[in-house]
Amino acid sequence: MKLNCDMGESFGLWQLGMDTAVMPHIDMANIACGFHASDPLIMQQTVTLAKQYNVAVGAHPGYPDLVGFGRRHMRCTPDEIQALVLYQVGALAAFCQQQHIPLSYVKPHGALYNDMMQDEPVLTAILKGVAAFSTNLPLVLMAQTDNSRSEALASQFDVPLLFEAFADRCYTDAGLLQDRLQAGAVFTQQSQIVNQAIQLAKHGCVTSNTGKRIKLQADTLCVHGDNAQSIDAIAQIKSAMSLSKG
Amino acid sequence: MKLNCDMGESFGLWQLGMDTAVMPHIDMANIACGFHASDPLIMQQTVTLAKQYNVAVGAHPGYPDLVGFGRRHMRCTPDEIQALVLYQVGALAAFCQQQHIPLSYVKPHGALYNDMMQDEPVLTAILKGVAAFSTNLPLVLMAQTDNSRSEALASQFDVPLLFEAFADRCYTDAGLLQDRLQAGAVFTQQSQIVNQAIQLAKHGCVTSNTGKRIKLQADTLCVHGDNAQSIDAIAQIKSAMSLSKG
Amino acid sequence: MKLNCDMGESFGLWQLGMDTAVMPHIDMANIACGFHASDPLIMQQTVTLAKQYNVAVGAHPGYPDLVGFGRRHMRCTPDEIQALVLYQVGALAAFCQQQHIPLSYVKPHGALYNDMMQDEPVLTAILKGVAAFSTNLPLVLMAQTDNSRSEALASQFDVPLLFEAFADRCYTDAGLLQDRLQAGAVFTQQSQIVNQAIQLAKHGCVTSNTGKRIKLQADTLCVHGDNAQSIDAIAQIKSAMSLSKG
Amino acid sequence: MKLNCDMGESFGLWQLGMDTAVMPHIDMANIACGFHASDPLIMQQTVTLAKQYNVAVGAHPGYPDLVGFGRRHMRCTPDEIQALVLYQVGALAAFCQQQHIPLSYVKPHGALYNDMMQDEPVLTAILKGVAAFSTNLPLVLMAQTDNSRSEALASQFDVPLLFEAFADRCYTDAGLLQDRLQAGAVFTQQSQIVNQAIQLAKHGCVTSNTGKRIKLQADTLCVHGDNAQSIDAIAQIKSAMSLSKG
Repeated sequence: MKLNCDMGESFGLWQLGMDTAVMPHIDMANIACGFHASDPLIMQQTVTLAKQYNVAVGAHPGYPDLVGFGRRHMRCTPDEIQALVLYQVGALAAFCQQQHIPLSYVKPHGALYNDMMQDEPVLTAILKGVAAFSTNLPLVLMAQTDNSRSEALASQFDVPLLFEAFADRCYTDAGLLQDRLQAGAVFTQQSQIVNQAIQLAKHGCVTSNTGKRIKLQADTLCVHGDNAQSIDAIAQIKSAMSLSKG
Repeated sequence: MKLNCDMGESFGLWQLGMDTAVMPHIDMANIACGFHASDPLIMQQTVTLAKQYNVAVGAHPGYPDLVGFGRRHMRCTPDEIQALVLYQVGALAAFCQQQHIPLSYVKPHGALYNDMMQDEPVLTAILKGVAAFSTNLPLVLMAQTDNSRSEALASQFDVPLLFEAFADRCYTDAGLLQDRLQAGAVFTQQSQIVNQAIQLAKHGCVTSNTGKRIKLQADTLCVHGDNAQSIDAIAQIKSAMSLSKG
Repeated sequence: MKLNCDMGESFGLWQLGMDTAVMPHIDMANIACGFHASDPLIMQQTVTLAKQYNVAVGAHPGYPDLVGFGRRHMRCTPDEIQALVLYQVGALAAFCQQQHIPLSYVKPHGALYNDMMQDEPVLTAILKGVAAFSTNLPLVLMAQTDNSRSEALASQFDVPLLFEAFADRCYTDAGLLQDRLQAGAVFTQQSQIVNQAIQLAKHGCVTSNTGKRIKLQADTLCVHGDNAQSIDAIAQIKSAMSLSKG
Repeated sequence: MKLNCDMGESFGLWQLGMDTAVMPHIDMANIACGFHASDPLIMQQTVTLAKQYNVAVGAHPGYPDLVGFGRRHMRCTPDEIQALVLYQVGALAAFCQQQHIPLSYVKPHGALYNDMMQDEPVLTAILKGVAAFSTNLPLVLMAQTDNSRSEALASQFDVPLLFEAFADRCYTDAGLLQDRLQAGAVFTQQSQIVNQAIQLAKHGCVTSNTGKRIKLQADTLCVHGDNAQSIDAIAQIKSAMSLSKG
């Protein structure tokens, strides 16, 4: 079970995230591409840092909304989405070429990610953008109890899918994330976060907010590197996972 | 002698240039990459149009200055320039991959082009950015009476150079463009434009503003596609060139 | 019945609209404020042009989306909307101060206008932004068969309202604009456009797509200045209106 | 001797500066206006915070260069500079109107400030922009040994000037800031910073890098609020100044 984390989210003079502290602990770096965060120099530095720690580089394209950090839904057409994904993927891939490492996957960011999970034309547009860049470039989606619909769609474009789950979020019986505004939706206790990570890695399931066991087959776990506490959680997850393998 | 022309300079709703009318007449399309003009959809359409007419696609990176159309000098560091060139080249190359055509060359735009010709650290930064993208990707520079200095620099990075000349601009004895503000600096008579094009293509020289014959070895001629008159000039140059070959 | 028209929609080098041809014919200029179109120099030139023809200047704020021309819905919070309206109103007002003319009203643009008409929290946020700038600054809304709800809301913030109608759009029985995608939704015949303008000005009503007479009390008529034909329509509306008064 | 400090330099999600910690200690807040930093919501919050501590609000306009934080010289025309200053001043003034406090002054930022001090057409353009907004709105310049030239220019536009000096920078015999790259150019010891502040406040002079006493009549002292240490220096300067008055 690989750990993926959003990286390279600084912009110009403005710092965000603790990339140098996080990079040694993760397997996949989702690197922002300049539309919702990052800039050419930061992309270059982040790709270089990922290479140093042998971390797979993924493009993390977002809506063109710096001031909103790509978190605000924008009603773009499928054509616009397909083209803005392709643009950002190409821009990041250039820094991978510079470092002689592959671009390993694409994971949309923020509102674009949410729209992709809820709106099939958006998913289709993203698949087209990814497939246009190269064959066999995987796209990361959120794991659901039944992934067959998105798998069928992706296979039309020959795009492999990677499914991700969240260790620090409470799931509903439907296998969706509980609304952030509800109590208990975001886990704050590290033991709870580590337990869910182990449950996902060993048993392919989570325990929902009503106590049900929900199947959730995930290839990768999304973690956060914003503060010292979240980095500590990453380290604990990694350590627990190696133990659980033993 | 190939004709190159700036293309894809629209932005969102705003139209600029007469791309569909010009594309059939040129050999090389310098396509803007979103920093001084263009956007992902327009880049996609312009690359598609270039492919349709078998026109070689070049990246036309500029300073990040949409409102100034990349024409205002910005004091960027060499590291910034190297990274912003690489970013833009990668973004455009993605649309070439989509169309299964190669990215054929890089020609900087506006103030970045001027700074490259006047400031060696800028040229070095651009060479690094181009070389980082791929080996053997040519860079377009302005032809000078003596190109040895830039050739020596480019060879350090294994970047092939293409030199361009201007059919509609009057040259000084030093082989530089006469200041636009001086009378006669920009040719308006089509016969004058066509004559200089022929002189460059057949004899590798121009006649300077003092009447001297100036050697100027050029691989490509820069033409403009902004209005009906300039497109007419392109057609006349092409026709005159085929005659002069015969 | 005053004629209002979107103006100052160029951006940097990119021209849009025929402002110098339209300005003599209109009463109210809705001037873009730099978020979806325009820039400081163009705002200055457009305010100067409006003053020359004694045209009232209105701020035309939009979402921060240049490449989408403010036509794409963005899910902004009410706080964000209130602040971005106030920012843009202040920026345009500075150019009015320079010309010693008042800022006469505010009319939101594109997707922000549509969201205002459909979403009460958006209307409230805009009212707050307008009221924060100055008391008695009117806001332009779309005239509906019953305006009481928006009038009640506006009165809470002491913001006067101006209602606008469209001469070139077919209305439904509910007093809403017919969907653009339906046949007949946009009038193309000038006689039809002029007739609806007269009907609105003299009788305060339109004839709906089912032939019903719909009451629509409007203070101003929105016209367009994009091409020669639309400018001709403006002139005909003006001429018909003066005749109808006689 | 009033203390001025750059404030409101965050952007969207990205935090910069310790505004809430600094605001209680300063007299004048130079608030960024959205071109090199800040956004409408942050401007609103910063103006509100300034009002709470009775701090005078100044507009801090910069070049349109977010990724470069307005620190990169851009070759703008005087017309462009005049208009971009007026735009930003108007935008910030709107938030002052909302809080019913005056806009008290204008201080250009970064590269625009440097260009203003070195290039008379830039200073003239800025004076025009400030004067166009309102009469008697002061402009902040860097104090020099002889301010007569800028005073003569400003008086043509009826713009009052405020001169600022730096407590933490070493001056040359010519009354200019020593190059940052030279050893000793930036003071790091708090005692040195406080001493120069007192010397400026009580005696209107500094001791240059060669030990000469240089006259420097300043109305305000520029301080920095980026980190805990710099905020501590501000508190010490204030305390030392009240003692020196006693």
